[in-house]
Amino acid sequence: MVRTGKNTVEVCFSPKLLPEIQTKDHFIVVLVDILRATTSICAAFQNGVRSIIPVDTVEEAAQMKKEGYLVASEQDGKKLDFADFGNSAFSFTKENIGGKTLVYCTTNGTRALSQVQQASGIAIGAFINITALKNWLVARDMNVVILCSGWKNKFCLEDSLFAGALADLLLREPAFITCCDSAVAAMDLWNLAKGDLLAYIDKAAHRHRLEKLGLDDVVEYSFTTDLTQVVPVFNGKEIVSNEQ
Amino acid sequence: MVRTGKNTVEVCFSPKLLPEIQTKDHFIVVLVDILRATTSICAAFQNGVRSIIPVDTVEEAAQMKKEGYLVASEQDGKKLDFADFGNSAFSFTKENIGGKTLVYCTTNGTRALSQVQQASGIAIGAFINITALKNWLVARDMNVVILCSGWKNKFCLEDSLFAGALADLLLREPAFITCCDSAVAAMDLWNLAKGDLLAYIDKAAHRHRLEKLGLDDVVEYSFTTDLTQVVPVFNGKEIVSNEQ
Repeated sequence: MVRTGKNTVEVCFSPKLLPEIQTKDHFIVVLVDILRATTSICAAFQNGVRSIIPVDTVEEAAQMKKEGYLVASEQDGKKLDFADFGNSAFSFTKENIGGKTLVYCTTNGTRALSQVQQASGIAIGAFINITALKNWLVARDMNVVILCSGWKNKFCLEDSLFAGALADLLLREPAFITCCDSAVAAMDLWNLAKGDLLAYIDKAAHRHRLEKLGLDDVVEYSFTTDLTQVVPVFNGKEIVSNEQ
Repeated sequence: MVRTGKNTVEVCFSPKLLPEIQTKDHFIVVLVDILRATTSICAAFQNGVRSIIPVDTVEEAAQMKKEGYLVASEQDGKKLDFADFGNSAFSFTKENIGGKTLVYCTTNGTRALSQVQQASGIAIGAFINITALKNWLVARDMNVVILCSGWKNKFCLEDSLFAGALADLLLREPAFITCCDSAVAAMDLWNLAKGDLLAYIDKAAHRHRLEKLGLDDVVEYSFTTDLTQVVPVFNGKEIVSNEQ
């Protein structure tokens, strides 16, 4: 592609706000659900999953289990009875998912994916692949929309902090600019939080939801940077590794 | 009213996210559009306007002008030709609007008002009435939802900073709590910005939209606290002073 100018970085704090942004041509959406879907997807690819088929509803997930698929499905944080796994990155070990296709349904992350229209590409973002993702985005040379899955369409702190961290990395590159108030706010929150991220994230409502459910063992892992070089991308049917 | 427990403070960053919040009984919505609608409404009541009739569309505003009403109407910041006034607080002098009823249509603020359903009350908030508003809310003893009008349904910095400032004041009162990530983020942004609010707001996209239109003379006024004791409230048909 011939460079025609600067690319924009925008942050979208909820899937419900995406229609307000989707007016430009040629943008890549980065899907974010730090606690826990997009962190878990990156972990699954790091551990050799072949592909992930995201589905919108628990009913679809249950049907695909009957058809013989390996299924990860949770609702409001909890693994559903019929499913092989819930939504924890720690379930997606090499032994469990290496070389396999996984069907995946989550309360926020995979549903947010179904809201994305018109994008030129969709990548999966998490702290554990942030630098690889930044490099991949720089090479794509397009506008970027960082889409926070949030909690049931509401703003959430953990996704917003990641959006700020990624926007901050991109805007250090000469090819990117922003005039997006959400990006400015996300970067300011990130710069406030980054000195002691785990202490800051203790303010987040979802961190406490997971704690009550005994599912907060992944919190520290989810805020660790650069554990993998993989950038999972959604091709319209399934999520595959950018290296495939 | 007998106190039954703590009241919650929630912040809603866009009118489009309000349906995600409107699940609780007994809450008051504080409508916020700092640049410029809610600042201008507070200024109008300080200068003795009798009532303000908010309308959703320019067509309604134009029709009501034909019917003889005094009309303030703007689109994307600019005063419309048929209207008596645009959206600047400085238009609403005692001479212009004292004792009169004003019809009002703005790009974001009055349209956000039309999205509010089910609230037990709707108040108009701005920096220029923040302490009076806080005291009025404490006396109401209900849950509070601070609704940022944003810019065309997108997150905006100036409304979010006000939401943080008001949430911060309310949460110093023993009657209020929050478990809302948006409120936490808004308060953190407010605490980051408050030391030099005008410097911070220079980051905001809408501040620059107004500058380009030559309409940024109200910026300093809009970030000045406690210029009036009035709390305008919407009764379902028109906005009146809480003192009426």
